[in-house]
Amino acid sequence: MKNLFILIALSTASTGAIAASAFSDAEDAVSYRQHSFQLIRHNFADLGDMVKGQVPFDAERAKRRAAALVSLTTLPWEAFEVPGADKAESSAKADIWQNLQDFKQKAEKFQADAAALNTAAASGTMEQIKPAVMAFAKNCKACHDKYKAD
Amino acid sequence: MKNLFILIALSTASTGAIAASAFSDAEDAVSYRQHSFQLIRHNFADLGDMVKGQVPFDAERAKRRAAALVSLTTLPWEAFEVPGADKAESSAKADIWQNLQDFKQKAEKFQADAAALNTAAASGTMEQIKPAVMAFAKNCKACHDKYKAD
Repeated sequence: MKNLFILIALSTASTGAIAASAFSDAEDAVSYRQHSFQLIRHNFADLGDMVKGQVPFDAERAKRRAAALVSLTTLPWEAFEVPGADKAESSAKADIWQNLQDFKQKAEKFQADAAALNTAAASGTMEQIKPAVMAFAKNCKACHDKYKAD
Repeated sequence: MKNLFILIALSTASTGAIAASAFSDAEDAVSYRQHSFQLIRHNFADLGDMVKGQVPFDAERAKRRAAALVSLTTLPWEAFEVPGADKAESSAKADIWQNLQDFKQKAEKFQADAAALNTAAASGTMEQIKPAVMAFAKNCKACHDKYKAD
C-alpha cells in the first residue's frame, strides 16, 4: 500500500487544498477554466473551419471534435464556484457571480448544444452539422458578450 | 448563410493553417497538448487525493473525474504529429519522435487505463477504484520517465 501512495505522489500534484474541490486555490481554478475553454475553442474552431470550408470536411474528425466537446463543455463550471473565484484575476466579469443563475443556465444550454452537435456529427453530413455549429457558436458569443471581458 | 460565417468568425479563432489539422502551427499544437495534460492532471489528482484520503471519497465526483479522463486522454496525441511538433519548445523529449511507435502504444495503454478507471468508478467503491488509480498512475510515470524532461 505504501508503494501505491509513493507512486501516486510521484505521478500527480496533490490539489486538495480547497475542501471538496480539486483546486489548490482560486488561481488554480482559473487556470483549470482557461485550459478547458482553450480546448473547447480548439475543438470547436476545427468544426467552424469545416463549416466555412477552410479545411476539408472530414466526417470522422467532426465526430471526434463533437464527442470531445460533449465532455469538455461539462468541465469549466465547477471552477467558477470555488472560494475566491470571483476575485481571482481572469477575463471573467464580476457579473457572473452577480447573475450566477443566468450564468449556470447558459452553461447548461452550452452543454445541451454540444450534445446536439454530437448527434448532428454522428449523422456524418454537413447539412446536419452546419446548423448545430451555428447554434453552438451563438451561445458562445452570447455568454462571452455578457460575461467575458475583451 | 453570410450571417452564419460572421457568427462563427466572431465566436472562434480559425486554426486551420496546418492542412488536415486543428492547429495553426507547432506552438499552437504544443499549447493544446499542455492544456490537455493539465486537465488530465487535475482530474486524476482529485482521484489520487481520494485514494490517499486527502479529500473525502465522493463516489459521484469520482465518476465525473473518471468520465472526464476517458475523453481527455484521447486528446493530446494528434498534437504530437503536426509538422514541426518535434522542434517546438516544450518538455517533450526528442525521444518521442524517435520511438513514435512505443510512444503511441503508451498513449493507447493510457486511454485503456482511463476506460478501466471509468468502469471502476462506476462501481462506486474505493476497493475497485484504488487499483485502477494505481494502474493509471503507473503508466503516467512510465511515460514521463521516458519521454518528458524534468
